Order: sequence, then C-alpha cells, then structure tokens
Amino acid sequence: MKKINIAVLGCGRIGQMHAKNVALHEMTSLACVYDINEDFANKVATDLGVHAVTKDSEIFSNAEIDAVLVASPTDTHIEFIEKSVAANKPVLCEKPIDLDINKVNESAERLKGNNVPIQLGFNRRFDPGHQEAKKSLLNGEIGDLYQCIITSRDPGMPSWEYLQASGGQFRDMTIHDFDLARFMLGEEPVKVFAIANALIEPKLKSDLNDSDTLMIIMETASGKQCHINNSRSATYGYDQRVELFGSKGMIVSDNRKPHEVRKFAKEFVNRQEPYLNFFIERYQEAYMNEITAFAEVVLNKSQPIVNFEDGRKALVLAETAYKSVKSGRMEKID
Amino acid sequence: MKKINIAVLGCGRIGQMHAKNVALHEMTSLACVYDINEDFANKVATDLGVHAVTKDSEIFSNAEIDAVLVASPTDTHIEFIEKSVAANKPVLCEKPIDLDINKVNESAERLKGNNVPIQLGFNRRFDPGHQEAKKSLLNGEIGDLYQCIITSRDPGMPSWEYLQASGGQFRDMTIHDFDLARFMLGEEPVKVFAIANALIEPKLKSDLNDSDTLMIIMETASGKQCHINNSRSATYGYDQRVELFGSKGMIVSDNRKPHEVRKFAKEFVNRQEPYLNFFIERYQEAYMNEITAFAEVVLNKSQPIVNFEDGRKALVLAETAYKSVKSGRMEKID
Amino acid sequence: MKKINIAVLGCGRIGQMHAKNVALHEMTSLACVYDINEDFANKVATDLGVHAVTKDSEIFSNAEIDAVLVASPTDTHIEFIEKSVAANKPVLCEKPIDLDINKVNESAERLKGNNVPIQLGFNRRFDPGHQEAKKSLLNGEIGDLYQCIITSRDPGMPSWEYLQASGGQFRDMTIHDFDLARFMLGEEPVKVFAIANALIEPKLKSDLNDSDTLMIIMETASGKQCHINNSRSATYGYDQRVELFGSKGMIVSDNRKPHEVRKFAKEFVNRQEPYLNFFIERYQEAYMNEITAFAEVVLNKSQPIVNFEDGRKALVLAETAYKSVKSGRMEKID
Amino acid sequence: MKKINIAVLGCGRIGQMHAKNVALHEMTSLACVYDINEDFANKVATDLGVHAVTKDSEIFSNAEIDAVLVASPTDTHIEFIEKSVAANKPVLCEKPIDLDINKVNESAERLKGNNVPIQLGFNRRFDPGHQEAKKSLLNGEIGDLYQCIITSRDPGMPSWEYLQASGGQFRDMTIHDFDLARFMLGEEPVKVFAIANALIEPKLKSDLNDSDTLMIIMETASGKQCHINNSRSATYGYDQRVELFGSKGMIVSDNRKPHEVRKFAKEFVNRQEPYLNFFIERYQEAYMNEITAFAEVVLNKSQPIVNFEDGRKALVLAETAYKSVKSGRMEKID
Repeated sequence: MKKINIAVLGCGRIGQMHAKNVALHEMTSLACVYDINEDFANKVATDLGVHAVTKDSEIFSNAEIDAVLVASPTDTHIEFIEKSVAANKPVLCEKPIDLDINKVNESAERLKGNNVPIQLGFNRRFDPGHQEAKKSLLNGEIGDLYQCIITSRDPGMPSWEYLQASGGQFRDMTIHDFDLARFMLGEEPVKVFAIANALIEPKLKSDLNDSDTLMIIMETASGKQCHINNSRSATYGYDQRVELFGSKGMIVSDNRKPHEVRKFAKEFVNRQEPYLNFFIERYQEAYMNEITAFAEVVLNKSQPIVNFEDGRKALVLAETAYKSVKSGRMEKID
Repeated sequence: MKKINIAVLGCGRIGQMHAKNVALHEMTSLACVYDINEDFANKVATDLGVHAVTKDSEIFSNAEIDAVLVASPTDTHIEFIEKSVAANKPVLCEKPIDLDINKVNESAERLKGNNVPIQLGFNRRFDPGHQEAKKSLLNGEIGDLYQCIITSRDPGMPSWEYLQASGGQFRDMTIHDFDLARFMLGEEPVKVFAIANALIEPKLKSDLNDSDTLMIIMETASGKQCHINNSRSATYGYDQRVELFGSKGMIVSDNRKPHEVRKFAKEFVNRQEPYLNFFIERYQEAYMNEITAFAEVVLNKSQPIVNFEDGRKALVLAETAYKSVKSGRMEKID
Repeated sequence: MKKINIAVLGCGRIGQMHAKNVALHEMTSLACVYDINEDFANKVATDLGVHAVTKDSEIFSNAEIDAVLVASPTDTHIEFIEKSVAANKPVLCEKPIDLDINKVNESAERLKGNNVPIQLGFNRRFDPGHQEAKKSLLNGEIGDLYQCIITSRDPGMPSWEYLQASGGQFRDMTIHDFDLARFMLGEEPVKVFAIANALIEPKLKSDLNDSDTLMIIMETASGKQCHINNSRSATYGYDQRVELFGSKGMIVSDNRKPHEVRKFAKEFVNRQEPYLNFFIERYQEAYMNEITAFAEVVLNKSQPIVNFEDGRKALVLAETAYKSVKSGRMEKID
Repeated sequence: MKKINIAVLGCGRIGQMHAKNVALHEMTSLACVYDINEDFANKVATDLGVHAVTKDSEIFSNAEIDAVLVASPTDTHIEFIEKSVAANKPVLCEKPIDLDINKVNESAERLKGNNVPIQLGFNRRFDPGHQEAKKSLLNGEIGDLYQCIITSRDPGMPSWEYLQASGGQFRDMTIHDFDLARFMLGEEPVKVFAIANALIEPKLKSDLNDSDTLMIIMETASGKQCHINNSRSATYGYDQRVELFGSKGMIVSDNRKPHEVRKFAKEFVNRQEPYLNFFIERYQEAYMNEITAFAEVVLNKSQPIVNFEDGRKALVLAETAYKSVKSGRMEKID
C-alpha cells in the first residue's frame, strides 16, 4: 500500500509529536518538516531521518507531497490552511483556527465553495474512550441524553509567556471542551453561561484579564444541559472526563492510567500512580487515530468528520462565554 | 447509661424509618409515635412495641419525653418546632423547614433568643464518606478549595401527588445539595445561577411550572466555584457524589454499593449491581449518625452542628435559584 | 410479632457482639447473658439492659427462653450444644465445634437422630457479597465452575496467649475458608494439599509448631480446583476475597470499604482508606443476617443451612491439611 | 542516531508482530524477514516495505545486520540461537527455547563461554504494570515478600493443531508464569506442587494427556509462597494479574482495559468492555519495551536482563510440575 506523504509545518512540541506520529504511522510517511526557526526544523528532521525545508512554498509546490499537517503558531494557521487549499492539498490543522473570530469568519468566506478537505485538530474526538461513549450514545444505550458533564483540568500552569500569547483560557483551553460538548450533545448549544476566576495565579486576572479556573453551563435548543469545568492546574495529572446522563442510564469516559498497579499499605488501599501527565501522553492513541482519519480522508477523497466550521463554532462558543462572564447573564449564540 | 427518650411525630415513610432508628439506636429509646392519621400511628407503634398518641399535646406535656423528632408533612414543621421549643424539648426536624421563605423568616424571628436545640434533618452531613471528605479538606489534604461539584440524582420520578405538593424541585430536592454545598464550601455562596427543565416529564413544566432536570453554578465571596446537577430519575439508582478540587489535589465521595461483587463475562468486565435505591438505604449510616449527633446534643445540652439557620439559608439559595431561572442572570443572595 | 427470646452464653469479644446484635435485631430479643466470669457477664448485661445468670442451667431450664447462642470458649461448645439439644432449644454455636476431631465425631454420634436445630456460626455464608456470588453461580451466570480462589488475611497477629490456645492456623483461621470453599464449590473437596510457614513470627513454628502464612490447593471429585491463601497479618486491613471462575465468566466478591472516598494528589490517584479492620466490622451485615437466619429456623422449626455436620466437615479438611503439610503430598479426605 | 538493523526469522502471528514493532520502533530498523514458507515471508516483507530472504544464511552472513529476532517454530529456536551466536549477532529469541529440556541443556553446554547476548522473549517482564510492581517491591514498599499470586488465563482455547504441537500446558502457557514468578520472587523456587485437569475440553486429557485448567504452589528456599492458576479459556478476555503480598502491604498489577468507559443502566453500574483479547494487544507496550531493551543490549554490548538460562530455568519448573502432577507430591527442583 502506498503511504500518504505528509509535510509537517511547525516543529514545536506539538509539531514534533505530529511529525513523529506521521513517520511511525502505517498509512503515512513524513515528507519533510518546516519551521520558521531553521534550527528547530533541522533538529526534528535529523531525528526522524527526513529533510527540513526552509520555505513553506517548497511544500505547497511539491507534487510528491500529498497532504499537509499544520502545527505552527496559531496566527499562521489561516495562512497555511489557505495555502494548502490553493495547492489542492488536504490539510490537518491544529486548533484553534485563530484567536480572532473575525479573521476566522473572513477566512471562512474566502474558503467558501472549495472542496479541499480541511480537518481540525480536535484530537479528543478520536480518543478510544470518548469514541466508545459517543458510539454507545448513538446506539441508544442511555436513551435520550439529558446532561453532559465535561471535566478538563491541565496538570500545571503553563509559562507566563505562553499565557500572554494564549488568547485566554476559553479560547486556548476550553476550546477543546466546547468541541467535545458539541460532539457529545449531537446538537448545537444555543445559550452559554460562564464564570471565570484566577484562583491559582491572581496575576492572570490583574495583568492579563484572564482566568485559570472556570465553570460553564450551556443549553441546546431541545433543552439538553451541559456543564464544563476547567482548571489550569491539577496536581494529580491531566484530568479528562466526560459524563453522559440520559433517560436509560449513564456513560462515563474516565482518565487513562499509565498502568493498572494498585498499592495497599497500613495507611491506604487501591492507591494508584498519578494520571498520565499531559495531552501528548494521555491522548497518544487519539493523536494516532486522528492521523488515521486524516489519511483516510486523503485516500478516499472524503470530507473530515471535524472540519473548519467545527473549529469556527467552538470559537463562537468561547466568544459567547467571554460575553457571559462580562454580563453575568446566560448569553445566546449569535 | 440512661437512653434519651424520643417521641416521633409523623409516621409516613421517613417517619417510620426514624422511629425504627430511634428504637434500635444504642443511645435512644422510642417514647411514642404520633400521626394525624391514627391508623398510620397505630401500625408503626405496634411494629415497634410502643404506644401511639392521638394528640401531639400528649408529647409536649410529657415530662418523660426528653426530645422530639419531627417527620410530619412540611407545612406542620414550624408549628411542631415552636411547640418543642415552648416545651423546652430539643427537636430534630426533617427538611425543609417550610416551603415558604416568609414563614421561615417569621418563625426565625419568633425563635430568636431561645436556646433549645433545633437540629435540621440534613442527613448527608452525617454520611461517613462526605464526613471523611470534609475532614480531609479541613486537614488541608487538598490545599485551598477551588471547585465543588455535587451530582445528585433520584432513582425515579415520584408520584404526581408528591410532585404537586413538593414545592418544586429546588425547594424539595436541591435543598439537600444547597446544604451540602454550604457544608463543603466552608463559606457562604453569594451568587447563584440556575437552569431547569422538564426533560423527563414535560407536564411538570406545563402543568406545575416545575422541573425534573437542572444545573446550578454558585460562587462564594472568595471566588470558590460550585456546580450542582440534579435529575429526578437515574435508572441506575440513587446517584450521590461530591467532588472537591483544590490546589493540592481532589477528594471524591462516591456512591455506596450494596456489596462489592464484580462480574465478568463475554460481554463485560467489572459489572456491578445497581446502587442502593434511595435515601433510606444509601444514607442508612448517615441517618443513624444523625440520631447519634442529636442524642449528644440532648445529652450535653450543646447546640447542633446543623440548625434552623442552616435550614433557612438552604431555602434562601433555592429562592435565589428560582429568581435566576426566571431572569437568566446570576443572582446575588439578598 | 413476638420476638424470639435468645440467651447468649459467653461474654468475650464475639459474645458481646452477638448479645448486642440479638438485642438490636428486629426479630429477636436478648433474654439474658451468661459467662463463667461473672464480672464479664454483669458488664454486658448492664450495658444491654438485661440480667446475667450465674449458672448455665438457669438458661436451659427456663421455658421463656426460645433459643441459645453459644459464644463461649471453644472447649465448652460441645457441652453447650448438647445441653441445648437436651433442653429442646435450637442453638447457634460459634465455630469451631471443637479443636479435637475425635470429640466432634463422638458428639456427632451422641446427637444422631435428634431434630433440634444446630446452626454453626460460619458467618461468611451470610455476607451479602458472598451470597450474591453464590446466587449468581447457582443462576448459571458463570456456567460450570472451574476454579475457586479464596484470599483471607487477618489484619494483625493475635496475642501469644490466643495463639497458644488457638489449635493452630488451619483449625482456628482457615476453618472459615474451608467452610466457604465447601459453600462455593457446591460439592465436597476430596483431596487437600497444603504448605504452611511462620514467615511473620518464626517463634510460631519453633515454639508452637504452628504457622502464620499458608497456601492450599483442593480438588473435588469432579475436578473443580480451589486455592486458599491465608496470612495472620495484612497491614492494609482484613482482606477477604472470593473469586469464582467458570466456563462463562468470573465473579469476584471483594472487600468492603468504610466509605467510598477516593483521594488524588501529586503522588497518587484513587487512594482509599484501609479496609474495615476485622471481622466484627467487615462482616457486620453477615452477623446480623446470621441472626435473621437463626430466628427463621426457630420460627419455622426448620433446619439451618449450615449445621453441625458442616462444622465437622470443615474440621476434617483442617485435619487433612495438617496431614498434607507433614507428608508433602496431596492427601485424600478419609 | 543510527538505528539497530534487525532481521526477523519467522513470519507467523508473533513474527509479524515483532517485524512490525521493529519497523516502527525509534531505535531499530527492520533489515529483512525470513520464513520457511516464502509466501508468508513475502507478504510480511511487502507490507513493511523490506525484502524477504529465502535462506537464513543470507541473514547470518550479512554484515549490515546488527542483530536477529527469532520468532520461528519452537523446534528451530536452538538452531537459530546457535547460528546467531556463531555469527556474533545478538539474538532475541521467543520462548520457549525448546520443548525438550535435554536439548536445552545440551545447547547450554555448547553455548558455554560465549558472550554474544541471548535475550529470551519473556515479554511480561517488560510490562509497565509488572515492572512498577517489581520496582515497588525492590523499593521496600511492601517490606518482605511473603506470597506471590499469579492469575493467567487465555481468552479462548487454541486450535487442536496448536494444542497437539504445544508441548503441553505447563511448557507452552505456564512457562510465562514460571518466569514471571522467578522475576517477582527474587529467588529461585525450590519446590513445586501442581494439579492439572481438562475441564474445558476433556479430549485434551484423553487424547493428548494434556490439561486446560491447572493450579500450582511453589516454595522458595527462604519460605516465600507462590500460587499460579491457569486456564485456556476466560470468556471475559485475556486475564493477567500479579499480586505481591508482604510484611508492609500488597501490590496488585491488574488487567489493562481498552479504554476507561464505564456504563450504568437499570441492571448494572460500572460495567466495562471486556479486556484486551490476547497477548499482542494486552502486552503491546511490553513487546515494544522488549525491543527497546534488546536495542540497548546491542548498542551497549551489555547482557540482557532475561537470558538463555532464564529460559532454561522456566522449563525446569515446567518439568518439575509434570513430575508433581504424576506423583501427587510437592517435588524438589533438581
């Protein structure tokens, strides 16, 4: 079977992971890597035995490259998506599309009518547990869905530099939960209420008008209820849970553990090691499955199950959450 | 050791349970039972080997009765509390004090200055799991508390008659969660946001302007966040969970099971029997511990850890939740 | 309903527990207590509001006493069982019948033909978890039973005095597991292999020729396999597990916990408090259910589900285990 | 970093898995594959983009091949091990070395004095859970080890052809558990007792004098006790558990699940999907870690942590088990 030849743009932490996954994946090969920082690109290229390109145009003009994976800084996403589309190359782009909803809307306008697949990097949709939960829901195992509860806590505060450029907790972190909520609810939230506070690092509020601890309630048109809670810092590891409650029962997709060792001593029973630290470890299978899904999109010339419009809608929910925090009201989605 | 002699008023389901607990408890004896329905009273009296009184005055005037437990219909609670106080008998009264906050405030006014112990029947505070969670929190095991999440779902829809007289889901059902939230947060919520819907039984909304499925977010003055979700009908049994998330970790007080049998077969692993059906089974130990605490209050002439004012404050939270549902805003506590 | 009036012989730790259970049980009342040590008897009597008798004959000759519960030292069991039978009073006797299999056989001979119910105190048969396991097995949920694995570890070494009089680990401790194995297997073991060692307290071996750590394999006529492991000292609490493995699946009856609190911190997740310390706490429900079963035997003039012969057969297995330890062979049951 | 270039001999199920792992592993590259069945070899070669060799000599004489992985039929293991050693190529060989202990002893004699690393394919030693258990044991977390209990049940009966050539359950299946027991005990078992029966497929006993259901007890010189139970067919999936019990506590390395989804409905709570079906899925990480360990052995010219002698000793335990089944005695290791 011929492998799909994929170029990776962006060689930071997430780009390195994607490049490695593409290189190791059965259905794909790594064509080359690109980063505006040539040292970064060269290092990743050497590690993975491919070459680094110094201009992104070398990728878009190269007929041997079947598809593009964008993991560069957020403010370059739209540019690279549009270049991929112009080059007729399917693109898998990391979230978020952009921090500015207006730019996203303008790009959506420009992209209208094109058929080149644009897959958004909402990796959680590809997690085996979350997928089983969704599948069970669709199978009717819990009947009508009434409530969806998403707990999502990062294992530790990112650097101040990261926070300054992050676009804020709702756009940077909750964006994944907004997408997961849409995925699980099976219909669009129409109203959003949110509170947000800087309980861990007060400077986040005073200096950046940002938060580290938040809670959300959303409602869909048919009345389904969704709660999301987020924290930037859970000492016990990356905490990622989804609970679906319906007329016939409940499904919980719980945290993965590094192994199933339980310890017993004078002071405790059933003690386990902390959860896998962060997204690269926790969602390892999800990231590989995401590549599988993308490879199938390229292979079958089909459309991705999570696309540009999904990226845009998650961002609209984030914008509405900010509006609610300011107004103290449940806000309607425009 | 002389046992505390307790009379029980009200011989419905919860009254029967209390009467039996008082009779079986090491520290207490059941003096007599009373119910406006004499047949009910006689049946319970016969089962437990005590006599039934036909007038409540026989209880309040009886010097051999040390204390009173009120489990009669809600609209008689204030009357019996005040009669107990007048008779100088410590009283343990089931929640809620009354469905009408104005009547509660008026009674509070009348009771001002008296020292007769009035314990409110918020049984969950006495659950071994919830108590361990609270103790660990106070011990600093999770550092500063950031988020408290309470899941509370009844195992099945009550009768239409019950619902008509219930005072609404927030006053009848969430009242317990409001109290538990106050207990766990360790400070007063100052703002409440709530949504409520009739997803299970639409007639609840159309005919009674009531709900069966709701979600709440509350905030304390220091910024602690609390989420409550409620449903009238969880097929898998009475679902009662508390999660406390803080700067150093998390504590979860999870559901009790009837036993620890796990089953494994071709289609599943770790399958367990449904949770204990409802409050009498789930909170069996809590109800006994509640009697212990009340007996100690009577014995030591001390004040209860959960009192009339706690009952009033839980009701104020319920009132504020109704206000929020109507306004679509987060509402401040008056 | 008239309560069954029960006298309790023996006011040590287990006798006190039984006396209290009989006093609190809905179907029974405590007639009186007896102990050869009158101070012990008086103390328990006072605590429970009954009188102590100074001669056991006062019990056997008292027509108002419906039944007898024997919790006195092991070497008095046979005497009290036979006196109860002579007095035509159903008797519930603690295990073991005696430490000497010859005395048990002789008593069996003397008791032959009588119909007075003799229930043996194998409490574990009445544990809700173990009962559910057995029920599921009988329902065919795991098909044909192939293997039964019993883990049974005490929370800490008993006193040297206790050990000296215990009759040895197989007769004193494993006796419960031999009975549980018979209960679960549903057919008689026909061969026993055992090893035993004093890994915790070497003096047990050198001074008493006894053990604290042992393993057993038994086989039934149809080839079912059973493993038992025992330890006198598990730091994490009283460890009581049964695993049934069959052609269609597996059933595990696991340990009870004092509550369902799980803790999460930098170093761990899902940490729980140690198990309930010992048999009185762990098998609390089992002991109450045992009283229920006995009360029903008395009430219905029926035969107990666990009787003198069961006590004798468990002791035969213990004897065979000793034989195997000595011979290094799997030994047949005589 | 230059990758270790590894040739894989044997293209059956386990050979295919190893070839793929070697091809995907960061530290290794797949040089070529060999199978006596050229069609098998060609298929695997094509899938993985390497070439198939038709004579094993092409591998042993090829200077570009750094090391050899043997996954061919058991009766070729010794030949390929010795050829690898002669060619000075480190070799990772699947278990067992051979079904005939005499042949293994003879080979050991011939290999005496050589330094070419021979790693045995006891994959379980590399499982993250089992490794964590061992590490905790060495850290003293449970103090002195008293008992080790290994449960190991295959998910379903293999084909009759497989069974005929398997060498018997102790040599084919328990061999892994014997090795794991040695790994965990930290000292050699000196005595073995075993029973074995054909409860699932009686023809196994009548036609092949083999078994499908067995139990073992082993003892070390210092008195540590070890129980192993095996079944050829667990409906709920591949069941792989290790329990270590010691003076300070217990460690359990439990089964892996495909995800952490729990389901709740009217009839059950906490229901999970069956375990990963078999060794390739269950021990996926272990097999990769095994390759890592082998790559490091090659790279560092060090000796493997599990070697030819470990393979031989596991087989000696199997032989002793057969002897015990026949004699009905606990047998000493020669």
